[in-house]
Amino acid sequence: MTRPSLTERLARHSAERAQAGLLRRLRTIDHADGAWVHSAGRRLLAFCTNDYLGLAQHPTLVAALKKAADESGVGSGSAHLIGGHRREHAALEEALAEWTGRERALLFSTGYMANLGVMQALLQRDDLCVQDKLNHACLLDGAQLAGATLRRYPHADVDGAARQLASQGDAAALLATDGVFSMDGDIAPLGELAGLCRREGATFMVDDAHGLGVLGPQGEGSVTTAGLGQDDVPVLMATLGKALGCSGAFVAGSAALIEGLVQSARTYIYTTAMPPALAAATLAAVKLTLTEDWRREKLQALIARFRHGASQLGLPLMPSPTAIQPLLLGDAQTALDASKALEQQGFLVTAIRPPTVPQGKSRLRITLSAAHEEADVDRLLEALSRVAAPRPV
Amino acid sequence: MTRPSLTERLARHSAERAQAGLLRRLRTIDHADGAWVHSAGRRLLAFCTNDYLGLAQHPTLVAALKKAADESGVGSGSAHLIGGHRREHAALEEALAEWTGRERALLFSTGYMANLGVMQALLQRDDLCVQDKLNHACLLDGAQLAGATLRRYPHADVDGAARQLASQGDAAALLATDGVFSMDGDIAPLGELAGLCRREGATFMVDDAHGLGVLGPQGEGSVTTAGLGQDDVPVLMATLGKALGCSGAFVAGSAALIEGLVQSARTYIYTTAMPPALAAATLAAVKLTLTEDWRREKLQALIARFRHGASQLGLPLMPSPTAIQPLLLGDAQTALDASKALEQQGFLVTAIRPPTVPQGKSRLRITLSAAHEEADVDRLLEALSRVAAPRPV
Ligand SMILES: Cc1ncc(COP(=O)(O)O)c(C=O)c1O
Ligand SMILES: Cc1ncc(COP(=O)(O)O)c(C=O)c1O
Repeated sequence: MTRPSLTERLARHSAERAQAGLLRRLRTIDHADGAWVHSAGRRLLAFCTNDYLGLAQHPTLVAALKKAADESGVGSGSAHLIGGHRREHAALEEALAEWTGRERALLFSTGYMANLGVMQALLQRDDLCVQDKLNHACLLDGAQLAGATLRRYPHADVDGAARQLASQGDAAALLATDGVFSMDGDIAPLGELAGLCRREGATFMVDDAHGLGVLGPQGEGSVTTAGLGQDDVPVLMATLGKALGCSGAFVAGSAALIEGLVQSARTYIYTTAMPPALAAATLAAVKLTLTEDWRREKLQALIARFRHGASQLGLPLMPSPTAIQPLLLGDAQTALDASKALEQQGFLVTAIRPPTVPQGKSRLRITLSAAHEEADVDRLLEALSRVAAPRPV
Repeated sequence: MTRPSLTERLARHSAERAQAGLLRRLRTIDHADGAWVHSAGRRLLAFCTNDYLGLAQHPTLVAALKKAADESGVGSGSAHLIGGHRREHAALEEALAEWTGRERALLFSTGYMANLGVMQALLQRDDLCVQDKLNHACLLDGAQLAGATLRRYPHADVDGAARQLASQGDAAALLATDGVFSMDGDIAPLGELAGLCRREGATFMVDDAHGLGVLGPQGEGSVTTAGLGQDDVPVLMATLGKALGCSGAFVAGSAALIEGLVQSARTYIYTTAMPPALAAATLAAVKLTLTEDWRREKLQALIARFRHGASQLGLPLMPSPTAIQPLLLGDAQTALDASKALEQQGFLVTAIRPPTVPQGKSRLRITLSAAHEEADVDRLLEALSRVAAPRPV
C-alpha cells in the first residue's frame, strides 16, 4: 500500500508546530474563583477568560442551575425536534428574542454550531459569502461547509467589502462580520456595512459573541448600540458562554428566518439539545445582565483605567473600546515569553500566535472583567511594564 | 439589485416542506420524569429519547452536577487552551480513555463538533473519505468541511466500501462509519471494515454515539464488543448525551492522535470548553454505567420483549439488536399519522421522514430505555397493533 497515513501526517504536523515554537499547551485549572485560578499548586490572576461581567460563578446562576437540575435532570435526552425541547429552552429563547429586539431566537449548543448551521441553511453552492479577514474561525468554516464562494476583505474595510460584493453582482450574497473582533477587540463598522448590504441586496449577518452583554445600556450588544434593528441585521448570532458566563449560543431574527432554521439548519436538527438546566442558568444570567448595570459600568471603568495606564507606559495597545485589550508583540516567541514572564509574576495571560492571528501579529490577549478590581488592573500594568514595555534605546 | 434574497429562499424552502407534508414541528416538553414527559397539559410515555440507560435524571448525576457547580460555577469562561480546561474535564477525559481502552481521550462540546473537528484535522483537500450511506449527518459534513472527496457505499456493504477505497488507491484515506446506525439501530460490520482498512492502508474511524454504554459487558461499545482495539480503530468517537444522559462528546485514540487534535482540530481550539459541572455529572454517569450492569441487562430484556411482541403482531421491524427499534412504514404521511395516533393514546414516538431518512423509508423511530418497564413495552405494543400493524387483506 502506498497511501500516506493520515495519523502520521497529523503527528508530523504537531512536530512541525513544536519546532516552530507554536505548540499549544493544555493547562489544567484546578479551581476558579472569580478572576482567580488555581493551577499546578499556584494561584494566578486570570486576564484571559471571556467572562466579561464576572457571572460564570455567580451564585444566582449556580442556584438556577441546581434548581432546574432538581426538576429536569441533566441531559435533554434528544434533539429539539425529537422531544428534547424543554420549557427551559423555550423560556430562554423568548428572553433572548426580547432582549435583542428580534421576533424569535433559536438556541444552539455552541456558537460554532450556530454559525455553521445558519450559513449552511442560508447559503448554497456558488452563493457569495463575503467576510472580514479577521472573522472568527467558525464563520469561515460555515462558508466552506455551505460550499459557498468565500471572499474576504481587509479588516473593517467597507470599500473592500463593496468590491467583493460587486465581484459577483447577481449572486445571492451573505455578508458576515464579527460585531466585536475576538482577537482585536475593535467593533466592526456595522452601520456602513448595513448600508452597503441594503444597497447591494445582500443579507447582513453579525456574530456578536463578544458584544452581547457588554455593549449598550442594557448589554443589547454591538448591533443595537449601532442603532441597527432586525431589518438592518436580519441574522444576529451571539453566544452564551462569554459575557453571560454559561455556554451555548443563539441566532435571532424574523419569525420566518428562525422557522427556516428549524426546518433546515443541520447543526440544529441533528444534535442533542443543550441540558435544560443550563438553559435555566442562562436565563438567570440574562436577567442579571439586564438589571445589574454596575457590571458594565465597572467593566468600562476598568477598560479606561487599563488603556490609560498602558498608553502611559508606551505599551503596544490596539484600538479597542471593549473588554478585549490585546498587546501586539509581533513574533510568536516574544508573545510566549511575555506570557511566561507574567505567569511567574502571578498572572494568567494567554499568548495568541499564528494561525489564530496572522504571522507577525502575535499578541497577549488581555481580557478585562467586572470580576477584576482596580488594584488588579494596576498590578497587571506594573507587571506589563517589566515584561512588555518598549525598552529605552 | 437582481440578487436573489437568501432569507426569502429559505422561507420558500420551509413553505415547500409544509406543502410536501414534511414540516418539522417543535413541541415543548414542560417536564420529564424518567420515560414520562408532560407536554401541552398531557402526560405521555416517551419512546423517542436516546437516554438508553435511564440516566438523564438520575439523582447521582444531578448531585454531581450540583456539587461541581457549587465548586466551579457554571461556564468554563474560555476555550480549553485559553484557561478553560478544568480539573473536571481532565478527570472525565481520563475515565473515558480508560473505559474505551485508549491512550487518551479529548472532550468536545457536542458529537457534531467532535466529528467535524477530527475529520477537519485528519483530512485535507483531495484526500479520500469513504462513508456508509446511512452515516450520521455530521460525518458527512465533516468530509465536506475538510474538502475531502466523499465517496459513499451502500449501507453496511463491505465490498462496496472496498470498491470506493480502490477507486483512489494511493490517496490518503479515512473510512468512517456509525458503530450503531442512528435511525436503523443495526451494527456496522466493524470487524470486516477494520480488516479492509488494514489491507488498504486506510484509517478507520467509528462513531459510537449509540453504542457506548449500551453494548458490551461494561458498556464499552460496539468497537470493543467486536473484539477491536486502538490499532484496529485508531479514531473512536462517542457522545455523552445519549446512554450517558448528559451532553457533549469525545474522541479517543493514541496519544499522538489526541495531541494532533489539540494542535489542529478547529472545533476543539476555537470554542468555549463545556461547563465543568457538566463534565463532573458525566463522570458520575460513566461510573454508574460501568457498575450498574442491570441497566444494560434490563434494556436487553426489553429489546427482546419488544422484538418478540412486534414480530408476533407482524409489525415491520428492522434487523436491529440495539435500543433503536424503528418500524418502517414507508411514506412520510403514514409515519406521521401513526405518530399522531400514538400520541392520542398517550405515547410520544417520533416519525422520521426525509431527508433524515431516504424517500419511501419513513418510520417510527422507537427507542427503548432502562427507564421503561415491561408493562410500558406491552402497552406500546398494544397501541402499535392498532396503529401500525399490517391490515388483514
Ligand atoms: C466571534 C466568535 N464567534 C463564535 C465563537 C464560538 O462560540 P462558542 O465558543 O460558543 O462555540 C467564538 C468563540 O469561541 C467567537 O469568538
Ligand atoms: C451517530 C451520531 N453521531 C453524532 C451525533 C451528534 O452528537 P451530538 O448530539 O452530541 O451532537 C449523533 C446524534 O445526535 C449521532 O446519532
